Amino acid sequence: MKTYKYPTIEETKELLKRPTIESNVIQEKVLSIINEVKTKGDKALFEFSKKFDGVSLTQLIVGETEFNGIESKVEKKLKSAINVAQTNINKFHKAQKSELLKIEIADGITCWRKSVPIEKVGLYIPGGTSPLFSTLLMLGIPANIAGCKEIVVCTPPQKNGKIADSILYVARLLGISKIFKVGGAQAIAAMALGTETISRVDKIFGPGNQWVTAAKQIVNSFGVAIDMPAGPSEVLVIADDSANPKFVATDLLSQAEHGVDSQVILISTSELLINLVMTEIDRYTKQLSRNEIIEKSLENSAAILVNNLDEAIGISNHYAPEHLILSVENAETVAEKIVNAGSVFLGNYSPESAGDYASGTNHTLPTNGFASAYSGVSLDSFMKKITFQNLTKSGLQKIAIAIETMADTEGLDAHKLAVTVRSEKDND
Amino acid sequence: MKTYKYPTIEETKELLKRPTIESNVIQEKVLSIINEVKTKGDKALFEFSKKFDGVSLTQLIVGETEFNGIESKVEKKLKSAINVAQTNINKFHKAQKSELLKIEIADGITCWRKSVPIEKVGLYIPGGTSPLFSTLLMLGIPANIAGCKEIVVCTPPQKNGKIADSILYVARLLGISKIFKVGGAQAIAAMALGTETISRVDKIFGPGNQWVTAAKQIVNSFGVAIDMPAGPSEVLVIADDSANPKFVATDLLSQAEHGVDSQVILISTSELLINLVMTEIDRYTKQLSRNEIIEKSLENSAAILVNNLDEAIGISNHYAPEHLILSVENAETVAEKIVNAGSVFLGNYSPESAGDYASGTNHTLPTNGFASAYSGVSLDSFMKKITFQNLTKSGLQKIAIAIETMADTEGLDAHKLAVTVRSEKDND
Repeated sequence: MKTYKYPTIEETKELLKRPTIESNVIQEKVLSIINEVKTKGDKALFEFSKKFDGVSLTQLIVGETEFNGIESKVEKKLKSAINVAQTNINKFHKAQKSELLKIEIADGITCWRKSVPIEKVGLYIPGGTSPLFSTLLMLGIPANIAGCKEIVVCTPPQKNGKIADSILYVARLLGISKIFKVGGAQAIAAMALGTETISRVDKIFGPGNQWVTAAKQIVNSFGVAIDMPAGPSEVLVIADDSANPKFVATDLLSQAEHGVDSQVILISTSELLINLVMTEIDRYTKQLSRNEIIEKSLENSAAILVNNLDEAIGISNHYAPEHLILSVENAETVAEKIVNAGSVFLGNYSPESAGDYASGTNHTLPTNGFASAYSGVSLDSFMKKITFQNLTKSGLQKIAIAIETMADTEGLDAHKLAVTVRSEKDND
Repeated sequence: MKTYKYPTIEETKELLKRPTIESNVIQEKVLSIINEVKTKGDKALFEFSKKFDGVSLTQLIVGETEFNGIESKVEKKLKSAINVAQTNINKFHKAQKSELLKIEIADGITCWRKSVPIEKVGLYIPGGTSPLFSTLLMLGIPANIAGCKEIVVCTPPQKNGKIADSILYVARLLGISKIFKVGGAQAIAAMALGTETISRVDKIFGPGNQWVTAAKQIVNSFGVAIDMPAGPSEVLVIADDSANPKFVATDLLSQAEHGVDSQVILISTSELLINLVMTEIDRYTKQLSRNEIIEKSLENSAAILVNNLDEAIGISNHYAPEHLILSVENAETVAEKIVNAGSVFLGNYSPESAGDYASGTNHTLPTNGFASAYSGVSLDSFMKKITFQNLTKSGLQKIAIAIETMADTEGLDAHKLAVTVRSEKDND
């Protein structure tokens, strides 16, 4: 992790460029996987499972017997941890429900928007060596609150052909029964197109590797909605003298351990702090099991010494980080100036891992600078809003001339006529 | 427009298939246009303007002199019509503002989401023979309410190299000054990538032809946000005996006149009504200036006779129409059962053209069945929500074990460590 002292704006923009991935090769392979699933359905899924997961499955769906005794297979400590997370995620996402508000535009013209659950949603949960049951909590809970009728989960099987107990436990806890042992691009294809056993869904959620990401992008171009575009995970920490170097170091490391393409950025007004953080990073990295990943992702990373906090905020808003930690005095005041970020963590006791697991906020967030235009997953992500309007005859009369004049100017006769016929006396 | 009597569910699904467009050829051409804009910037835009619009421009931006006296160039009647529309659109979209709500998850754990304007937005306004100033109202007003810092408008020039007065008038009215004489795929490319004179934007809005649509889809795959995927416009009318055949006929026609690929669907429990509507359609079509377009789009269209209202609702929810008109008794009760639609019009006096122009609702809506997962444009479309969290030391302690346990199970040591170091006594 290199340190840059007082770089110019141009230098800063250059050094904050995200690692780019050459995706053409992947794109073509993913397209051929999608076509296989389209033409061969379940058969293709069994074949891919053999090829990519090294597993010969006899059925795709997790059978009822596999759920047997799942309660006792998960340690008590983990169950109560999941319980804490579930309670908090539930509370935060339930608070996002909005009241239906009918607006009386004028006497006789009433308009409103109503949130309606997306009927069928598909959740992709990464599995294999590191089954992300936390992601199932983050996606399954708001899907349930929204009231989605059908929730389909796809997750790759482990080498033994099974799904991790933690995932099955969370699925049971959330009342989700359709879990399919399908991973990778083929899982996205199956949920987007439907197969004999997997229903076609309206929207697909969840993180994944480059294959999954590319497949989501491709099916999105066919018209299947996705949660958001994806890219490598990242954190930016703004820290001043009040920051604790150990805390900052471990926050940076907890992002760096995600994957070799992760990026972590430290911006500080204090050279001393930067130096102390670097020392702590070196010391801690040796203790961590994922140190090889960490060492690689730190190569994409940077510490930047700046003149003042406003400069730091400017850089952060330009970068639009997925996670932003404000380890500064008066973090609330600084937070007011943040305009581009996925999720913001205030002060010394709000580590990213709080939001990743258990504070209640969602951990599915816009990466790769997409935070400038996209929001993280929320209850809204599982609903769409339908507009309604109800006009009385006299209500329509109030705006009839306006509509007729505008339609006329745009050359749309029939639009005008639809109003005119409703104004004629003998048409009641 | 064909009539189908009591088709089976399978037959109905088949006849409601939307006209599909072969897009591979367009895709390639659009990609080459995007590449031209990428490498040559403004120069490419001038060239495309000559090639596609038949106009030799000397500058891309609409100059201040072109706005001169714009107030007096627009008829008084149109100005007051625009004023009515502006007032109502403003009222409906302002009501969509949401209060910031801080949630106390537990003592010492506070989480909230804040709506923040997307900084730079690009609005594409179709021009040429039919300049859609109404679309500028529909996009510019919520962009202003959201507080977007930079609003860029691209619209193709007319044969005389100018932009229609109605568009310039609305732009001035909304305080939008950056209007560029650029249309088609090249406009989308310019806003997505930026050129010497056109700023790169974070999100692109607006309808357009197949070229514009394809370009939006491509730049979206690069990570530039777009309002929604697009397809041909459509209306579905559910009508019973209480409906007025003239009203239903003109509603269907006002959709049919949009373009040759538009689709209009009538579903009714009354064979008599269907017959009367067909007669009215034939009669009115002859009077309408866009009758050639109408005749073509009616070929993609259908009237369906069903046994009861629930069948009609089922078909509509399957089809997920952009516009849905409920010309039925007790429209409010029927509306409760609608789960997939862009915008719903209740009763005999809520024609689609009311929502297209002046009732206050937005007319940028999900087509092509996308209403099953997408919402129409609203204030939200111009904002993103950033999540914040603020934990005190004791707040973090409450969930520390939960985080540590979950991180441990997922094999993410550093995530765990970031919490553990904050619990150690000597790290305060």
